[in-house]
Amino acid sequence: MRALIVDRSVPAGLRIGEVPDPDPAPHQAVIRVTATSLNHGEVQYVREDAPQDAVLGWDAAGIVEQAAADGSGPPAGTPVVTLGWSGAWAEFRAVDTDLIGTAPAGAEPAALSTVPVAATTALRALHRLGPLLGRRVLITGATGGTGRYAVQLARLGGAHVVAATGDPAAHGAGLRELGAAEVVTGARDLDAPVHGAIDLVGGSRLVDAYQRLAEGGTVVAVGHSAGADETFPYGAFFGDQGRHDRSVTSFFLLGCRDLGPDLSWLARQVAIGTLRPSIAWQGDWHRVGEAAEALLSRRLHGKAVLEVGRPLV
Amino acid sequence: MRALIVDRSVPAGLRIGEVPDPDPAPHQAVIRVTATSLNHGEVQYVREDAPQDAVLGWDAAGIVEQAAADGSGPPAGTPVVTLGWSGAWAEFRAVDTDLIGTAPAGAEPAALSTVPVAATTALRALHRLGPLLGRRVLITGATGGTGRYAVQLARLGGAHVVAATGDPAAHGAGLRELGAAEVVTGARDLDAPVHGAIDLVGGSRLVDAYQRLAEGGTVVAVGHSAGADETFPYGAFFGDQGRHDRSVTSFFLLGCRDLGPDLSWLARQVAIGTLRPSIAWQGDWHRVGEAAEALLSRRLHGKAVLEVGRPLV
Amino acid sequence: MRALIVDRSVPAGLRIGEVPDPDPAPHQAVIRVTATSLNHGEVQYVREDAPQDAVLGWDAAGIVEQAAADGSGPPAGTPVVTLGWSGAWAEFRAVDTDLIGTAPAGAEPAALSTVPVAATTALRALHRLGPLLGRRVLITGATGGTGRYAVQLARLGGAHVVAATGDPAAHGAGLRELGAAEVVTGARDLDAPVHGAIDLVGGSRLVDAYQRLAEGGTVVAVGHSAGADETFPYGAFFGDQGRHDRSVTSFFLLGCRDLGPDLSWLARQVAIGTLRPSIAWQGDWHRVGEAAEALLSRRLHGKAVLEVGRPLV
Amino acid sequence: MRALIVDRSVPAGLRIGEVPDPDPAPHQAVIRVTATSLNHGEVQYVREDAPQDAVLGWDAAGIVEQAAADGSGPPAGTPVVTLGWSGAWAEFRAVDTDLIGTAPAGAEPAALSTVPVAATTALRALHRLGPLLGRRVLITGATGGTGRYAVQLARLGGAHVVAATGDPAAHGAGLRELGAAEVVTGARDLDAPVHGAIDLVGGSRLVDAYQRLAEGGTVVAVGHSAGADETFPYGAFFGDQGRHDRSVTSFFLLGCRDLGPDLSWLARQVAIGTLRPSIAWQGDWHRVGEAAEALLSRRLHGKAVLEVGRPLV
Repeated sequence: MRALIVDRSVPAGLRIGEVPDPDPAPHQAVIRVTATSLNHGEVQYVREDAPQDAVLGWDAAGIVEQAAADGSGPPAGTPVVTLGWSGAWAEFRAVDTDLIGTAPAGAEPAALSTVPVAATTALRALHRLGPLLGRRVLITGATGGTGRYAVQLARLGGAHVVAATGDPAAHGAGLRELGAAEVVTGARDLDAPVHGAIDLVGGSRLVDAYQRLAEGGTVVAVGHSAGADETFPYGAFFGDQGRHDRSVTSFFLLGCRDLGPDLSWLARQVAIGTLRPSIAWQGDWHRVGEAAEALLSRRLHGKAVLEVGRPLV
Repeated sequence: MRALIVDRSVPAGLRIGEVPDPDPAPHQAVIRVTATSLNHGEVQYVREDAPQDAVLGWDAAGIVEQAAADGSGPPAGTPVVTLGWSGAWAEFRAVDTDLIGTAPAGAEPAALSTVPVAATTALRALHRLGPLLGRRVLITGATGGTGRYAVQLARLGGAHVVAATGDPAAHGAGLRELGAAEVVTGARDLDAPVHGAIDLVGGSRLVDAYQRLAEGGTVVAVGHSAGADETFPYGAFFGDQGRHDRSVTSFFLLGCRDLGPDLSWLARQVAIGTLRPSIAWQGDWHRVGEAAEALLSRRLHGKAVLEVGRPLV
Repeated sequence: MRALIVDRSVPAGLRIGEVPDPDPAPHQAVIRVTATSLNHGEVQYVREDAPQDAVLGWDAAGIVEQAAADGSGPPAGTPVVTLGWSGAWAEFRAVDTDLIGTAPAGAEPAALSTVPVAATTALRALHRLGPLLGRRVLITGATGGTGRYAVQLARLGGAHVVAATGDPAAHGAGLRELGAAEVVTGARDLDAPVHGAIDLVGGSRLVDAYQRLAEGGTVVAVGHSAGADETFPYGAFFGDQGRHDRSVTSFFLLGCRDLGPDLSWLARQVAIGTLRPSIAWQGDWHRVGEAAEALLSRRLHGKAVLEVGRPLV
Repeated sequence: MRALIVDRSVPAGLRIGEVPDPDPAPHQAVIRVTATSLNHGEVQYVREDAPQDAVLGWDAAGIVEQAAADGSGPPAGTPVVTLGWSGAWAEFRAVDTDLIGTAPAGAEPAALSTVPVAATTALRALHRLGPLLGRRVLITGATGGTGRYAVQLARLGGAHVVAATGDPAAHGAGLRELGAAEVVTGARDLDAPVHGAIDLVGGSRLVDAYQRLAEGGTVVAVGHSAGADETFPYGAFFGDQGRHDRSVTSFFLLGCRDLGPDLSWLARQVAIGTLRPSIAWQGDWHRVGEAAEALLSRRLHGKAVLEVGRPLV
């Protein structure tokens, strides 16, 4: 089959080449991939550390080509969204059946491919905040793919959503359309504490978010795009004066359990339009270099999606 | 009655003087105070910010002089330990009945007076860590009054206790006697991750403790004696590679609920010898200046206790 | 002032009479009551056990007549909703300031009076279920006042709401309008397990709901109108085959903490129309007998509201 | 290899016979089994429903014969305790490496074989109760294998343990030796509420335990040996008068995650004598019929252990 192969000798770091078809374990289905979305972390990894000739990729939408031998997971022919540590950037992917969600027939592959990492991360990070209904929730880095899902999902969960972005003038209207009740440049601009925050930036943004938590509140540290230390000034971790039980916690999607039903539910919401995928760039997988460049340069405010293997069909 | 009154014109910042007897609210009992223990935070407050003529003090052991008008709390004559924001440093104290624990008859007042802030803080901070049985728990700043209770209580709860102290040579034997399985200078010396940590120091000690947490672990930020910022290096809040759901959280004892039964249980453990109070300094309340000086200069490794009003009896 | 006084010599069990004005504690405000809603439990108590001459009542909407002496709570003139164990059925009520929510100016008192017990119970019972977004939630006894709030709030929280009522033909359309995705006669009709249930009936309805829980699910036992035992057949508490960690739990609104902000948020949602109060009966408080009768005979499907003291104004 | 094979034509329902060696999946190690302990549920299953010729068995102690192909788990030669749905009653067992705990060299196989189901169930059920230190915990059915571990572990966790047994005169001294502070015939004899209960009996014992819970308490329904319905009288699920948030929850060991480290910790405690295995019957696996009979007739108060394959060595 063809796949995007790590190749540091080309500018993009990735080239389309031939590799062996995947050899599924008994608890894995094989998926014919139709679209994949790129995530900042994996693209950066290609540039920096990934081993030559590896086939990477976390997110893939497609159709089940071959069901799992152990009987788990959906039958052949089912449209699915899939999540894994590698293998998404290929015509076929072997994937654990507990990391597969089913999608409604006829759903748009490009839209579905944004679900596995971005939407599921947003959903599970929000779960970590406790009840959302009627609570104030801050989303930092709200204009990225995960941020836009977090804004929408927090709103669907009944929260009063405050979206933070470096450029409210440019993005405020779009974020409000997705469900933000307020758009600010950062936690320092808040006029009242928040019960929870999903931080997609790190560095001083995370620290500022922590400092504006209400008692019992939590910041979930999801994204780290600032690439900076987090310095909490002396006193930040005091608990008196309404600051008891305020926490910051790390997050890793593949450290979460039972993702399958959530993948299916999210795929369905995208298919029926309850959630918008916020695709900022879409193109054939031959244009992966262009997409990666746009993503890393932070020119994109949403997801980048590659159509995979289409010429074959 | 007589009380320790804030007076910045004297070197200790406190002098014994006459003040009106307390006027209890319906849900308050009046306690005849027999001993009080000093906490770092309140002594520092006297030196820095406390209003002139205030009667402060968090911890008091004594005897119920007058039961609460609303019928709550123990009857007159009961030996008790009491907790509150102020008023402990006096011959009589009005205190909310839900912040009173009963003590066995004949228990030593000096020992009991160490319970309210130090032991209850240690117990409730340990509760925040989840199951203790068979888990590795780190206590930083282990030689202080709260630290020594935390070591003992974590051990009573079945944990493998790692005690951190700046001078293991001087304090290692004593901490092991209290139940520490290992004594280290800091979290950097750990040979395996910990499931939880009670941090009594702050600054880099807190950050180091966080970095050695197992997945799902928590650092409870209780003490802040380092007086320093907390700088987490880039990557500290990543969640991959077994670092998912690691958190740091603030703590404030008076933000906790239903402390009464815990105060009683702890008083009983001290009375029957299951817990040692670790009194490092004890003397008549006229010697408050001496005690405060010892505490603030960090020469004490344990609690400082004042005997209150004894000459009167 | 005038109040509804328990009087077993009259058919309704309640008559309007003169009682002394309330004498507020320092942490209580005095409210001029404009409307009260009746709850099944308190009306039944009047009939059965309440002491002669008592002034009862849990729910009251009104205006702050006199702010609390200790400075807590809203100032005089603020429209409020209030919750307490007694005293709501009177022209003036002394109420703890932590059981007061503020309401927007101009909100309809009758609508507001349905908030304290019914809406707050629904909200807090839903909190006990964990994340709602995308989860299946069952509400039994969905046509009552609390049930209708539970349907609406679960929907606002993003749940897939299944409403159970004895007569789906009569009430199905109304419940769907409030947000139910499915209307059934009971848990036995479910075509898939639910993640959580709010049970407002008890007896076999509670048991059936428990048996249809997904792994990790919870039934919150809120209402007990069936007046019947709960018999779980042998095997109901087995944990194998996807039945691990399924629980049933008791609930008591006044056992919950920090209700004030939730009272305010709910009052606001009712005022702006996000939540409908579902008033099934409304009239002057002289007609209390008629309202109580309708409530106890289960002819009402929603709240019964009394306008209080209006002739005075 | 030889194994105990389900054979309904023989009185015991099990006979030793030849079966193919296990064929491990990549994430499974192969264990040479030295001892197995019998559990009530699996023995009953043999008598009632198990398919002819099946090789069953949950608990096995032994030595790693062949490490897992994927590199997970301990190397060949390691003494281990293992848990699984089947395959323990054989000379060799293929077992998932995340259900293996390592044991200290030289530990007694018979003692180790009691760990996987009985001790791990006791530990994880206790985790579900929240903090144990200083809390009152009830264990019903305390004389069985799981019950005796629950008593010991609750005590190690700092709880005040109340053990319930049908015959306190016969078993009281033994249970006190294991750490019970009180021995009663049932929850009805308690003189104060308990914060949590591990119920190993079901039926009215479970209901009685629930009724004696303190606010916020939990009964974990682990064992069901009574074989009876659970009938909660009307009012049992009320939440007022200190009965808020009392729950009963189902439990299934294989529904729990990350059991490996707990298996290792428990094996170590048994090996060093912190925990006693409470073996009530021990013999060669040819005597399985005798052991099963003793277990099902409830004549045993502790674990039944079979020595496996010894003549071969």
